[in-house]
Amino acid sequence: MTDKKNEKMSRRNFLASAGGVAVGAIVAGTGLSLSSSEAEAGGLPEYPWTNYFDKKLDVEKVREKGTKYYHEGNHCGEATFRALTEELGHPFDKVPSQTMWFGAGGGAGWATLCGTVNGSGAAFSLLYGRTGDTMKLTQELFGWYSETPLPRKENSSQAKSVAGNPLCHASVTNWCEASGKKSFSQERADRCGRLAGDVAAKAAELLNAKLAGNFVPAYEIPEEAKECMNCHTKDSMLENTRGKMNCTTCHDDPHDS
Amino acid sequence: MTDKKNEKMSRRNFLASAGGVAVGAIVAGTGLSLSSSEAEAGGLPEYPWTNYFDKKLDVEKVREKGTKYYHEGNHCGEATFRALTEELGHPFDKVPSQTMWFGAGGGAGWATLCGTVNGSGAAFSLLYGRTGDTMKLTQELFGWYSETPLPRKENSSQAKSVAGNPLCHASVTNWCEASGKKSFSQERADRCGRLAGDVAAKAAELLNAKLAGNFVPAYEIPEEAKECMNCHTKDSMLENTRGKMNCTTCHDDPHDS
Repeated sequence: MTDKKNEKMSRRNFLASAGGVAVGAIVAGTGLSLSSSEAEAGGLPEYPWTNYFDKKLDVEKVREKGTKYYHEGNHCGEATFRALTEELGHPFDKVPSQTMWFGAGGGAGWATLCGTVNGSGAAFSLLYGRTGDTMKLTQELFGWYSETPLPRKENSSQAKSVAGNPLCHASVTNWCEASGKKSFSQERADRCGRLAGDVAAKAAELLNAKLAGNFVPAYEIPEEAKECMNCHTKDSMLENTRGKMNCTTCHDDPHDS
Repeated sequence: MTDKKNEKMSRRNFLASAGGVAVGAIVAGTGLSLSSSEAEAGGLPEYPWTNYFDKKLDVEKVREKGTKYYHEGNHCGEATFRALTEELGHPFDKVPSQTMWFGAGGGAGWATLCGTVNGSGAAFSLLYGRTGDTMKLTQELFGWYSETPLPRKENSSQAKSVAGNPLCHASVTNWCEASGKKSFSQERADRCGRLAGDVAAKAAELLNAKLAGNFVPAYEIPEEAKECMNCHTKDSMLENTRGKMNCTTCHDDPHDS
């Protein structure tokens, strides 16, 4: 794992500074400069970028943007990734947020992984790279998403529901049951737009806790799932599955039959 | 939808050319130049980048890299995204492939969406942005993944299995059943490494077909799933679910009980 420290650099500094640059030039009339490592990477600073995250994120701004971008055609996957990377600022906001657009409808409408956690996971991953921090934050968000009544905000008049796992399919169907609304209705789209805001906001909260040094993973696999996993997951007798989803959200207990 | 055409530009041209550039400079000693739009975007060209994809991809090179990067700690999500974006070349290879590292083990080990299709979907999405092409390619890859015996290569002595859907959980468990091997064994890791190669290679094949103008989506939702969807999906009586996964891969028919 590379743990190289990058010089902290704001967007303003990136555009304006020319000092301490080994191979550098100011582009005529713009004030643009590039450090040698930025030039090498095609204008982006050398990765990793973790040290560019140096100020608390505005959680409510992220929530607002997540919902706004959802409705502007970014859908769930891109809206969350974009809200988070824009708030993280340079250089994160230089990565085209369209990278996560395919996540819409749980991946091209397949209703697999909910796009809101897919897009947020990608933002964690861009920030912390191949480290345990990426995994811990993603794991925590997936767990929170599975167990939290959503949409979250208390002033919402919309029905709330608990997905039980991070899959779009379960999330939407449980909400249809709770609300009595249809899965392709405007109300469902409004609900998913709120989720894009709420999930991106939760991701921002987790990032703020990480930055402040007080992030403590809270998610625990539910007891009924642990019972299944005792025989089916790592180091168990059968060891014929993997995953952390609550088995009972999809499967009846086959030992009952 | 922005349909703006970008000037076709290879990595070599990007680094060497200075002609026709409104605001440009050559960085002393490097030959680096930036167009005004590249400068504006922090050194990357203005998005979309679709026109930078102008040569057939080497499918076998992508397969080899997918497997190689999987075993070098990129795991399934990043390995496929990296193999594809590297082969696509500039500017796709400037996006840190670490963005998709969280996809490992179906998303931080949760066994939701298989990382190989998540990473490949992100590569499609970066290339085609918010267009029907992104969705059609992703849809086709998810369908192919669900129905194809994997690992694919005929000279493999490993057990093959059919996932039935694009979820890591189903994919791994079905393979454990077919192979008699454990889900956290070295053999399972080797199998997933081969999948990283095979899925990225299939994605490259689809992209080549798209570039040549002969991409024809082939995936059809299985009949048994269509039967469920007749009552449960868009414009149906109940309309209380969404998705394209084959329902019967997780659910017994509740109407039997």
